[in-house]
Amino acid sequence: MFESAEIGHQLEKARFKREVPKLRQKLLDLQYELLKKDDFPVIVLVNGVDGAGKGETVNLFNEWMDPRHIHTHAFGALTDVERDRPEMWRFWQALAPKGCIGILFGSWYTDPILARVMGEDKRLQFQRRLERIRHFERMLVSEGVLLLKLWFHLSKKAQKKRLKDLSSRKETAWRVSKEDWQHFKHYDEFIDVCEDALRETSTGEAPWEVIEGSDHEYRSLTAGRLLRDSIAARLKGAPAVLSPPAPPPAPPIDGKTLLTSFDYKRRLERDEYAKKLRKLQARLAWLTRSKKMRDRSLIMVFEGMDAAGKGSTIRRLTQAMDARFYRVIPVAAPTDEERAQPYLWRFWRHIPGHGRAMIFDRSWYGRVLVERVEGFCTEFDWMRAYEEINEFEEQLTEAGAIVAKFWLAITPQEQLRRFKLRQKTSYKRFKITAEDWRALRAQR
Amino acid sequence: MFESAEIGHQLEKARFKREVPKLRQKLLDLQYELLKKDDFPVIVLVNGVDGAGKGETVNLFNEWMDPRHIHTHAFGALTDVERDRPEMWRFWQALAPKGCIGILFGSWYTDPILARVMGEDKRLQFQRRLERIRHFERMLVSEGVLLLKLWFHLSKKAQKKRLKDLSSRKETAWRVSKEDWQHFKHYDEFIDVCEDALRETSTGEAPWEVIEGSDHEYRSLTAGRLLRDSIAARLKGAPAVLSPPAPPPAPPIDGKTLLTSFDYKRRLERDEYAKKLRKLQARLAWLTRSKKMRDRSLIMVFEGMDAAGKGSTIRRLTQAMDARFYRVIPVAAPTDEERAQPYLWRFWRHIPGHGRAMIFDRSWYGRVLVERVEGFCTEFDWMRAYEEINEFEEQLTEAGAIVAKFWLAITPQEQLRRFKLRQKTSYKRFKITAEDWRALRAQR
Repeated sequence: MFESAEIGHQLEKARFKREVPKLRQKLLDLQYELLKKDDFPVIVLVNGVDGAGKGETVNLFNEWMDPRHIHTHAFGALTDVERDRPEMWRFWQALAPKGCIGILFGSWYTDPILARVMGEDKRLQFQRRLERIRHFERMLVSEGVLLLKLWFHLSKKAQKKRLKDLSSRKETAWRVSKEDWQHFKHYDEFIDVCEDALRETSTGEAPWEVIEGSDHEYRSLTAGRLLRDSIAARLKGAPAVLSPPAPPPAPPIDGKTLLTSFDYKRRLERDEYAKKLRKLQARLAWLTRSKKMRDRSLIMVFEGMDAAGKGSTIRRLTQAMDARFYRVIPVAAPTDEERAQPYLWRFWRHIPGHGRAMIFDRSWYGRVLVERVEGFCTEFDWMRAYEEINEFEEQLTEAGAIVAKFWLAITPQEQLRRFKLRQKTSYKRFKITAEDWRALRAQR
Repeated sequence: MFESAEIGHQLEKARFKREVPKLRQKLLDLQYELLKKDDFPVIVLVNGVDGAGKGETVNLFNEWMDPRHIHTHAFGALTDVERDRPEMWRFWQALAPKGCIGILFGSWYTDPILARVMGEDKRLQFQRRLERIRHFERMLVSEGVLLLKLWFHLSKKAQKKRLKDLSSRKETAWRVSKEDWQHFKHYDEFIDVCEDALRETSTGEAPWEVIEGSDHEYRSLTAGRLLRDSIAARLKGAPAVLSPPAPPPAPPIDGKTLLTSFDYKRRLERDEYAKKLRKLQARLAWLTRSKKMRDRSLIMVFEGMDAAGKGSTIRRLTQAMDARFYRVIPVAAPTDEERAQPYLWRFWRHIPGHGRAMIFDRSWYGRVLVERVEGFCTEFDWMRAYEEINEFEEQLTEAGAIVAKFWLAITPQEQLRRFKLRQKTSYKRFKITAEDWRALRAQR
């Protein structure tokens, strides 16, 4: 995989000097077109061998274009806020919004590769993390992100020379750390692992571009052209073609579904309800205050028909919990900052740390419920959502979250009855709008 | 100050039971009216003596109202992200948006009071922090926030009894920590300091409400009514009346100002410029990479007429810096999340931690420039902004930030020339809009 990046690519300085002004001008033009169009973000991953010119390229991109519309993020040690959330959380927080260019220096590849090289992750775990990355990138591309993955390579000999050169000059010595030399000792294992990583994640929608890093002129012009060409192609033509997910399953031929075969008559007598509620609330209060909760988080999701009782059910739960422990997120129309990001971004931003609970009143399931029913998104979007949601929830539970999801079901008749009742009760009137009535008619 | 909260206020359980349903109903109605109006937030500070029922009251508020529209924040130990930013940063992040109720459990009072009681802060430092709080609260109220400051009090005897009671029962013992008992030893000093704090910060626009905390029924109903009455009054009538700041200074009678008497003819020869630029960029590169920078942050602000060269000046600076070190924030129209917060919120959210630089292309000075000139805000708003900006920048520098502010000046003639030039240059055309031409005409 890296052979073609070890053949000593070089470019004469004169040609570089001649070509750079045109390239810069074009990149700047494209950047402004991207900004004006405000339709998709560009995300550039900068990864590769230490000393192969990653930092220089990031700086060059910022120098060649307008840095005001570039979001550069470098990822170092985890902060304590990041530590007890899913690994991908910090990358979600760093995604560039539509119209902008995001440059990620170090990325979701850095840790899986290092953990594998250092032997912390077994082969299977490594494969799993790569699969997660494939899903994540596929989601990004489906959401319209233009993803450019740059890998800067150096042969073992070239890396050694580069590190020595940098160390020997006073003004560059700071750039070589002890860690860099330590990593160098593992060069061969590192390259083996990287080859695996790149092969497994070089997908049709998000291929890797490997660039030989030893010659400044060759490396810079190659990287700049790749960026130029990918933005130009995307601005001109259609977004990446993704194989569509399987068609939605046909409804069962007997018309029976979980919701229609549900026993809506089950009920609890008032007295028994009061007794059981008290008992369960006491148990919940005790559990959420337990020491064990300090290493776990709790995520509750409420979905269901309008007027099914989501709000009042949530209140029965919060009554039992300390207000410092939980937060309720009512999911309504996205804000403009949320609209400039992939669909799940607005939920990722609320993911709680350990020792905290987040209760979602409506949720990411909106994509496969209201958005599907109302036609707010395409079939492609809501069909891929099922997989993306599974992936999302898996990441939550792996990071220690308890994820509890509730569907509150009522019959259309009961819903109509409650709507009418709400109209009569002064303080509940706010809860029912013309939109609700319209949705009700649409369902019937 | 606390005498009236040590007289053993009590309420019969029967009366409490009778009055609570009405109170809850009214609070819920008001909450929805607030939400619908979407015009101002309510921020409730819950402070006071340990064991005086602060936690119970916060929980009760969440139980009585719809917890979906309440943002409860408790402040504990600083996270590493908070530690190298100004003290007020985390409170800015926790401000409830318009239409919502924010409950702050522990607040900007907690640390100044504790630091004074424990002797970490001398009297003068304490006074200064209280003054800062007065300014901050005055700003909140000016921005339309309904600020309700609740102080829960217990006499020494009552606190001791309360802590003992809680400790003795299995289900409440977790609520009393060693720290609570340690604080109790300092009860007298604590009360002295609190009296000072409350007296100095009980302003006309944001008075303290002291509530005796020993009786659950009395405490809860009193707090609930205070919340009800303050929201009701505000929804009905005008916002808090604030004494207007001094009128703006009249222009000097000879018409001379800094900008008109500025020598616009100063220039640098191309060669000398190139030489000096190279030298200064090298120096900047070296300085920003210095170890000392790890305990400092850098905040640069660029203001000036359109086409004065803000963008290109910023690029000369970023060329010298590592892209991982800086971030440029182009300040344009606020997003809807920013519009739901006090004016300075959109700048506070970008304040960098130590070892990082933030470059603002336009800034908080917009309030006293474009917003003043275009009439986007009232005279009251832009006049108070001068003081608020001074306060803001003082907090930044105290937290280790180097704040550098640049005004780029050009004459109207030069601006017109550049506008025309931009229209001819393809890639600069995006930079000039009909809006710019309109603003130009308005200035002349």
